[in-house]
Amino acid sequence: MSQQFDRELLRSLFARALHFRGGRNGMNFSGRTLITLFYEASTRTRLSFERAMLLLGGNCIGTENAKEFSSAVKGESIEDTARVISEYGDVIVLRHTDDYAAAKMAQYASIPVINAGCGRIGQHPTQALTDLFTIEDHRGTINGVNIAVVGDLKNGRTVRSLVYLLGKYEGVKVTFVSPEELRVESDIPEYLTRHGVAYRETDSLAEVIETVDVVYTTRVQRERIEGLEEEKFAYLQRAYRIDAPLAHRMREDAIIMHPLPRNDELDQSVDALPQARYFEQARNGLYIRMALLEYVLAA
Amino acid sequence: MSQQFDRELLRSLFARALHFRGGRNGMNFSGRTLITLFYEASTRTRLSFERAMLLLGGNCIGTENAKEFSSAVKGESIEDTARVISEYGDVIVLRHTDDYAAAKMAQYASIPVINAGCGRIGQHPTQALTDLFTIEDHRGTINGVNIAVVGDLKNGRTVRSLVYLLGKYEGVKVTFVSPEELRVESDIPEYLTRHGVAYRETDSLAEVIETVDVVYTTRVQRERIEGLEEEKFAYLQRAYRIDAPLAHRMREDAIIMHPLPRNDELDQSVDALPQARYFEQARNGLYIRMALLEYVLAA
Amino acid sequence: MSQQFDRELLRSLFARALHFRGGRNGMNFSGRTLITLFYEASTRTRLSFERAMLLLGGNCIGTENAKEFSSAVKGESIEDTARVISEYGDVIVLRHTDDYAAAKMAQYASIPVINAGCGRIGQHPTQALTDLFTIEDHRGTINGVNIAVVGDLKNGRTVRSLVYLLGKYEGVKVTFVSPEELRVESDIPEYLTRHGVAYRETDSLAEVIETVDVVYTTRVQRERIEGLEEEKFAYLQRAYRIDAPLAHRMREDAIIMHPLPRNDELDQSVDALPQARYFEQARNGLYIRMALLEYVLAA
Repeated sequence: MSQQFDRELLRSLFARALHFRGGRNGMNFSGRTLITLFYEASTRTRLSFERAMLLLGGNCIGTENAKEFSSAVKGESIEDTARVISEYGDVIVLRHTDDYAAAKMAQYASIPVINAGCGRIGQHPTQALTDLFTIEDHRGTINGVNIAVVGDLKNGRTVRSLVYLLGKYEGVKVTFVSPEELRVESDIPEYLTRHGVAYRETDSLAEVIETVDVVYTTRVQRERIEGLEEEKFAYLQRAYRIDAPLAHRMREDAIIMHPLPRNDELDQSVDALPQARYFEQARNGLYIRMALLEYVLAA
Repeated sequence: MSQQFDRELLRSLFARALHFRGGRNGMNFSGRTLITLFYEASTRTRLSFERAMLLLGGNCIGTENAKEFSSAVKGESIEDTARVISEYGDVIVLRHTDDYAAAKMAQYASIPVINAGCGRIGQHPTQALTDLFTIEDHRGTINGVNIAVVGDLKNGRTVRSLVYLLGKYEGVKVTFVSPEELRVESDIPEYLTRHGVAYRETDSLAEVIETVDVVYTTRVQRERIEGLEEEKFAYLQRAYRIDAPLAHRMREDAIIMHPLPRNDELDQSVDALPQARYFEQARNGLYIRMALLEYVLAA
Repeated sequence: MSQQFDRELLRSLFARALHFRGGRNGMNFSGRTLITLFYEASTRTRLSFERAMLLLGGNCIGTENAKEFSSAVKGESIEDTARVISEYGDVIVLRHTDDYAAAKMAQYASIPVINAGCGRIGQHPTQALTDLFTIEDHRGTINGVNIAVVGDLKNGRTVRSLVYLLGKYEGVKVTFVSPEELRVESDIPEYLTRHGVAYRETDSLAEVIETVDVVYTTRVQRERIEGLEEEKFAYLQRAYRIDAPLAHRMREDAIIMHPLPRNDELDQSVDALPQARYFEQARNGLYIRMALLEYVLAA
């Protein structure tokens, strides 16, 4: 859960990520094993974790087919899976369709469990750590950041996780930009209010793009929206499309982020602009995962 | 095949498993490669073998999708697969839907082939070794054990393999407890008779639970029984359900075993009882697989 | 692309393959990572690359399920995939359904991309290198080889790649033997003419089998031919079936090759003959892949 990370821990993880990005070694976990249990495929996330473990000297086993555990025919509980799988390695990286799977597995596993994205309204904390690190790396601090979060805010796990982490900093301003149908769910504004973070909602990207420090845009997660018609999907995807002309209206020191993969909502014409930071952001994910694995394995 | 293991080999494998369970190293197989060929998914068995190989210093490659080899479109014989795959590693771990696949592959492969569960009436020898080791570890000896084998005795590979191994010891008493529909097939009583093992069949668990040393219960393998109705399945699964009140009737030094995964046939209320040994049994599987890999790779 | 390999490079790769086949070590790529991205399953090719990387001291991550990247729901471009995946390793091995996928990915990746078979009319260069190496290993030279290429010449990637490489040598004679329906596509004869290679087409294997140095036969790729009826398929597969009586008509120093897997087109009765070289050919594939990986990783 993103809520588990306090400012002190974030600071030390980011310092280690910078260290690793500089090509320096970390602790050596030779002979230690990372287990990937992916109940839904997410090759990029899985490979990123596996590469991180290999760079730390460890090794990897796992499955993209973990749904077999919970299949109708075999019907094992997540508790039993956690207990048995704990015997086969030193850390579990879990991707699941259920929002609370990681928390449940962590409760019964005898080794650390890292959430690599669970459910629709669940979280994706390593993505959020990566996002936060990318912002801090660019601005020197998260405090005072003015960020527009754009697109499918209803179905994006990454948005929820990011916003929860932003709530730990001072002077943060968040603008949620989305069509009516894809607005953030109510827990997020409530959380921000509780943590004294200024936020507002709008359906106009044009209105905010010139003033913000960060435009964080996301893919319409078509596979998570039931009964979405082709036409409507195309409309939603294009409604907040960022292309070079739009990006040119941003401040020079502002940045564009995207958790990837992208579709039409972020045009390739943006890639060459200095504001484009999404490939760098993807790269940072590797170093954040190294930092996190080092942290949990050293504990 | 379980028949391949004589008492002398079993003794030395169990000694090595104990050695590994004590956290001690074995031979180092750095640079040696284990190939997993799984024609049906069995993530827990596969991960267990892979972790065992990694702990021995080796590495792993493989597939959960081996049925591609024998697909209608490509149609390769198991003989050709064996010959070609032998070039890519040092030991093959095979899971197959065909009862005799492991024997056939072993015949043509130029490297050792370990059977990780083949077919419906085939065997699953590393599970049986694990089971036997768990009994010996608890009682000090297999000789004289009084064991009730409970549940789906018709479709369980693990039951057949275990019983074949039990036949190698003296004074063993086996009681088969199952509904009429799921009784053991005739080769098993014949084998036991041939080896002088006392056995009987009953449909009443209550009748034997107070006297045996070991209750070995199993999951109704729904996926292996054609045309099984929901209602009938639920009945079969519950017919020999073990829960805490029933388990309390067992002798204090008796144990409950289960190859896992479990469904309703073994209630979570049993987990905290001293008789519950199934998680320990799962853990033992890793050490037995290390012992077996060391044995075949050192040969 | 097979066109990328000049004679000088081929010579040095073959020398290294021989070196590796002799059980000698190559450069050590400890800590370097090979990424397999397979958009269609090809376990044998994948395992061969992975074992090659392991023997060079490196490690492997990857997926058999890469089509997820390009799925309708996520819709990522191959350019983005290339950029992101490049961060997770040191070399990509790509199998794809699209003829030009490897070329496209190589353009955007920041690490080397090796084509492990792309599309229907695309290429499969490591298979072709293996084939060429096997011929040179047997005859001492490729120059002057008289080769009959037999079977499904329309749909075979391996045939196209092999013929392109043969065009780099002197005095090569190629006879294409296939039924009318499965003749080579026109780019191949055009390429051979341009490179001064003598070729002819026939539908009679009997006519050429007694004179050639190499019979290179292939499987009818049923899965690549739309609407192929059972009866027709069986006919095509048997039309150029090679069995022991037919093979006995070959010259004593001639050889039979096949990229495997085989079906009925190559009878098991041939396996024991001295002309049968297809299992040796499969073995050579490992050493060629070691040579190629060493070449691209050392660059």
